[in-house]
Amino acid sequence: MAISVETFFLNPDAEGTLQAKIQQMIAEGILSGRFRKGEKLPSSRKLARHLGVSRITVTLAYTELQASDYLEARDRSGYFVSQNAPEPPEFDARAPGRDTIDWSRALGRRFTGGNTPEKPQDWSRYRYPFVFGQTDPSLFDHANWRHCALQALGQKDFQALTTDYYDQDDPKLIEFILRHTLPRRGILAQPDEILVTMGAQNALWLTAQVLLTQRRTAAIEEPCYHALRDILMQSRCYLASVDVDRDGLPPADLPRYADVIFTTPSHQAPTNATMPMARRKALLEKAREMDALIVEDDYEFEISFLRSPLPALKSLDTDGRVIYVGSFSKSIFPGLRLGYLVGSRQFIRECRALRASVLRHPPGHIQRTAAYFLSLGHYDSLIRRMGQVFARRRQVMEQALADHGLGVEGRGVFGGSSIWMRAPDGVDTAELDERLRARSVLIEPGQPFFRGPAAPRNYYRLAYSSIPSERIPDGIAILSEELAHLRRLAL
Amino acid sequence: MAISVETFFLNPDAEGTLQAKIQQMIAEGILSGRFRKGEKLPSSRKLARHLGVSRITVTLAYTELQASDYLEARDRSGYFVSQNAPEPPEFDARAPGRDTIDWSRALGRRFTGGNTPEKPQDWSRYRYPFVFGQTDPSLFDHANWRHCALQALGQKDFQALTTDYYDQDDPKLIEFILRHTLPRRGILAQPDEILVTMGAQNALWLTAQVLLTQRRTAAIEEPCYHALRDILMQSRCYLASVDVDRDGLPPADLPRYADVIFTTPSHQAPTNATMPMARRKALLEKAREMDALIVEDDYEFEISFLRSPLPALKSLDTDGRVIYVGSFSKSIFPGLRLGYLVGSRQFIRECRALRASVLRHPPGHIQRTAAYFLSLGHYDSLIRRMGQVFARRRQVMEQALADHGLGVEGRGVFGGSSIWMRAPDGVDTAELDERLRARSVLIEPGQPFFRGPAAPRNYYRLAYSSIPSERIPDGIAILSEELAHLRRLAL
Repeated sequence: MAISVETFFLNPDAEGTLQAKIQQMIAEGILSGRFRKGEKLPSSRKLARHLGVSRITVTLAYTELQASDYLEARDRSGYFVSQNAPEPPEFDARAPGRDTIDWSRALGRRFTGGNTPEKPQDWSRYRYPFVFGQTDPSLFDHANWRHCALQALGQKDFQALTTDYYDQDDPKLIEFILRHTLPRRGILAQPDEILVTMGAQNALWLTAQVLLTQRRTAAIEEPCYHALRDILMQSRCYLASVDVDRDGLPPADLPRYADVIFTTPSHQAPTNATMPMARRKALLEKAREMDALIVEDDYEFEISFLRSPLPALKSLDTDGRVIYVGSFSKSIFPGLRLGYLVGSRQFIRECRALRASVLRHPPGHIQRTAAYFLSLGHYDSLIRRMGQVFARRRQVMEQALADHGLGVEGRGVFGGSSIWMRAPDGVDTAELDERLRARSVLIEPGQPFFRGPAAPRNYYRLAYSSIPSERIPDGIAILSEELAHLRRLAL
Repeated sequence: MAISVETFFLNPDAEGTLQAKIQQMIAEGILSGRFRKGEKLPSSRKLARHLGVSRITVTLAYTELQASDYLEARDRSGYFVSQNAPEPPEFDARAPGRDTIDWSRALGRRFTGGNTPEKPQDWSRYRYPFVFGQTDPSLFDHANWRHCALQALGQKDFQALTTDYYDQDDPKLIEFILRHTLPRRGILAQPDEILVTMGAQNALWLTAQVLLTQRRTAAIEEPCYHALRDILMQSRCYLASVDVDRDGLPPADLPRYADVIFTTPSHQAPTNATMPMARRKALLEKAREMDALIVEDDYEFEISFLRSPLPALKSLDTDGRVIYVGSFSKSIFPGLRLGYLVGSRQFIRECRALRASVLRHPPGHIQRTAAYFLSLGHYDSLIRRMGQVFARRRQVMEQALADHGLGVEGRGVFGGSSIWMRAPDGVDTAELDERLRARSVLIEPGQPFFRGPAAPRNYYRLAYSSIPSERIPDGIAILSEELAHLRRLAL
């Protein structure tokens, strides 16, 4: 590869002759690892013109660098970084103390320090990945996704690909969601009542910014999705945690002063509880009494392979009280970052303005690709295929868990992609996780789903969305061994 | 197209027999426009199973709907929405007053009401689009972008496509930016000093959230990019506007109490001024004295076809005081939504945590596609081609403006994609814009770039990035005519 002439800049403050500055600049490029062995340097003519110096100055610098083995000349083809050039150091070559800013003062707000756990990026290298929320390459419909992406890259869709939509969305995707996706949840909506977001996380974030302030209270489920808790903590509102039971959020336990209720009726995250119809109605009634809004994260509704999903809370809402959060990131693939918000137009208008300020709009090409994938029916077949395979995996998992007598806390009667587990008291599942990783088993410790320092440490989540059936029994066997070991230590 | 059985839900609160509820549900679907003429209904067996009712109930409902011409039966292939079915109304069919929420109370914060102008989405239908920041289909390297996207969609890149990166970025894109893009600006950075963002707008937004509070002051250029002003207004910090001159932001005029200085040294937006080297050094010196940070939006540096761009402010920064904002959205295409932030690792760490909370990460497939497009050299050729064409267009434009004696306020000595214009006093360029649209000419009124109600109304921006050379003279002639007309009215 040739090094582009535009990467060369003389340091205006450097000492010495022009030739020395050029030599120094090139040597530094090599020593810092920026220019690599075998890469071609610009011709002396080009570099001289670019730097505004005479050609002979550059030639002399090159010759010197050749003499000191930084460069090598090849007949008629110019100068290259020498194979014998000094090795760039392995450590950070920058002088220490370069940054003189007092960042503890300069940072106006901090966003680090949330409770979101570190998750392994290389999960697919583990033999027993009971990992949640990643794509199983054996299930994903790669060929058809590629086909749709290609179609959306075509000349006909040029505008969808390249245009700055300002604050708008791809009309084809909006139409599909309105006509086909939402009716499956019993929801009828108008185009100005929906906004495409960067996944469900972005939808929840926008909602929190628009509805909450330092003087308002959000009620959340306990345990709950940790990223939601981080979002609400950052919004600085009051937080009221309400313990869920086997039917999800109990309306009677909601504090009367809550302004906004965040709930996951389809599959409570992480316990997998599905809220029964009667409780859905009671929740709406309670919210009406409290004059509170409800944010319904319709998480995993599509992964209902055991029973048909119940209608969304939003479909029962006659007040405009429910804000609905949907996602394709989970069911197509998480890297897609595509979800949507449905709510009253006054609310959607504010979310749209905020989204425009934060990022303008989700990339048009991704919206159009998803629109094709959905409208050609590939999405439905993907969900059906996932349902069939998940049903089988779940059966194998249930059997293995029963064989080893492991404690299931929540399994979800509609399906889902994971089982919520409870280890014996005294077992720290973070420690369990660490021991299991060494044996190529990945689980998800449960502590981050709970609030505060008194969070129980003996829960964990086992997902079956990314592990083949045939590996499940061995994985559970290892889990059982390590659990038994930790339990003995705890006694 | 067949209507999926999953879009059918019985309204649990509806009156009447099961059969009547089914009829009502289907009729409503047709009347609301959700089910369209010729679409196939599910078989009675399927629908009965889905709703948990007897098959005869569904059959009776279908027969009734056929009798009333909502449906038609076709031999052996089932029921379809009839060609004679009632037309869905043109107006919004939902009963008024459905939304009972007092949104003026329920909304915690408002984000609408910024000064960002409405821009026509259908700009490409105008004959003379002097529109800024959109992609010219005749210049964009569609074939190679498609090629790179295809490569990034391949099995080898499956993980880059589908994976949830959590708070990380595509390592290939990061490496390219560090080794090739930043060195062209004289910047050396480490991987933990860079963050990929959803375009420059998202980079500016993240920066404002991390650095500014209600007790801090941001200094901005006047006039400046209106979306930046909206972002800063939303952050509720104090704003100090500093008038730019022909060399951009004058350091001597900066108020000493400013905490963060936002500037566009390469091409001041919208005046196109380039800050000379001496002033760049003076600005850094002044910021050091004030102990202020500088946010350098290195806007349009690559569109420098008249002279080589000067090194970035960031390259002269020895304190870690400068935060650098780069973008590919502008130079590849705006719908891409891809940019980056470079700054001290403490700062980048907070931005990364905030980005994770807001949207997790920009889609992996887009990052990987851009990495290929850059590393295969297509980006450089695109920029070169744009430079050549823009140079020609600019020449034609300058000539046409001179021929008509129109007032140029800022033209940028390095290149760029637009000219900043001044109409005679008394002319309102919003009115000019409206008149010109009727004649298929698009310009950008300048008022939104200025602060507050006293903003001058006689500036406008003329871009040559999306209009072919041969149309420029006629477009300018029409502009000149309408300007003369408005001027006569103003006198």
